[in-house]
Amino acid sequence: MQGVIMDNKGRMIVVSAPSGCGKGTILAEILKSHEYYYSVSATTRSPREGEVDGVNYHFISKEEFEKMIREDGMLEYAQYCGNYYGTPKKILYDKMEQGINVILEIEVQGAMKVKKLCPDAVFIFIIPPGINELERRLRKRGTESDEVIAKRVAEAAGEIKKAVNYDYILVNAALEDAVDDFKAIIRAEQMKIEYSKNKIDEVLENA
Amino acid sequence: MQGVIMDNKGRMIVVSAPSGCGKGTILAEILKSHEYYYSVSATTRSPREGEVDGVNYHFISKEEFEKMIREDGMLEYAQYCGNYYGTPKKILYDKMEQGINVILEIEVQGAMKVKKLCPDAVFIFIIPPGINELERRLRKRGTESDEVIAKRVAEAAGEIKKAVNYDYILVNAALEDAVDDFKAIIRAEQMKIEYSKNKIDEVLENA
Repeated sequence: MQGVIMDNKGRMIVVSAPSGCGKGTILAEILKSHEYYYSVSATTRSPREGEVDGVNYHFISKEEFEKMIREDGMLEYAQYCGNYYGTPKKILYDKMEQGINVILEIEVQGAMKVKKLCPDAVFIFIIPPGINELERRLRKRGTESDEVIAKRVAEAAGEIKKAVNYDYILVNAALEDAVDDFKAIIRAEQMKIEYSKNKIDEVLENA
Repeated sequence: MQGVIMDNKGRMIVVSAPSGCGKGTILAEILKSHEYYYSVSATTRSPREGEVDGVNYHFISKEEFEKMIREDGMLEYAQYCGNYYGTPKKILYDKMEQGINVILEIEVQGAMKVKKLCPDAVFIFIIPPGINELERRLRKRGTESDEVIAKRVAEAAGEIKKAVNYDYILVNAALEDAVDDFKAIIRAEQMKIEYSKNKIDEVLENA
């Protein structure tokens, strides 16, 4: 199914952003609509306090995870600190088949893996209006030291440079505009000729 | 300037549709915004009753028209029934330079000429929800005979097949949705990586 362009089906949307860009807030707004499904990652690490199975992650055993890898059940996966993290594939294709857009919130490296497997996915990179604004937001949270903030700002700058590999750059200056920007991208994508050739046939048949 | 991708500049938008698709009504709504400029064609034919110079056409002499052709002043032009029809170029690039999107409402053949000259323009084809709906709309106008309507429906079907050469297919089932569709396309286009690489630099400089 990979790489196949499907008419009238849901789209795979890959979203990346440095932390502090308001990605979570934008996606929470978008996910209020039933047209979208949020892809929940699977992991073999233990749940932390407050984490809910099926919401934060699908918490599965190492054996289950490795079985899924063998059976081509993971779209992409990686190992980190001795644990597996991955994107279960079947549910995504089921949802898209039902006309639901699936959102994958993943970091740049994972996104580039998905790009090779699913070139017809929509790749959106969210950036803050300025690096100084990102620093201000991180400071406002008040949870991190100056040193940690400086490190995260430097990391963010490095990640933002990789945005050139995405299809769209969404500048999050104001939440409402950013949500409308996101919706405009998906709305326009559905009208792209690659995904709407069937509409031409439908119109001509409707005689 | 042709074919050059310009950041933060207005875009050239080429719109085609068979008659009876509601293109005029959609564009009238879009043009209420100052972000858009409607390209007025030039012609050497005489104004018909009620036609206003600079609104329906720029009515110019054959000598003026041929001088513009020689001086590369026409984006595209054609001869029809012994008269010239063309798209004056300079005003379009001036408007785009000011950040204003320019709309060219032209038929398929002219649009394909523009596509060769300006591949970074946005090509939108508007189609009715069904050929039967188009027939219904033409009948509703009550100005044409059955024979003429049948001929126009057949022509429309032929034109709609050429929509595959456009970037987007916009199905005009309801005016308000169609206007929002149009705006979504332009909004998304402005976020495309090809036109927003400068945003990445701006964000990184904003430190």
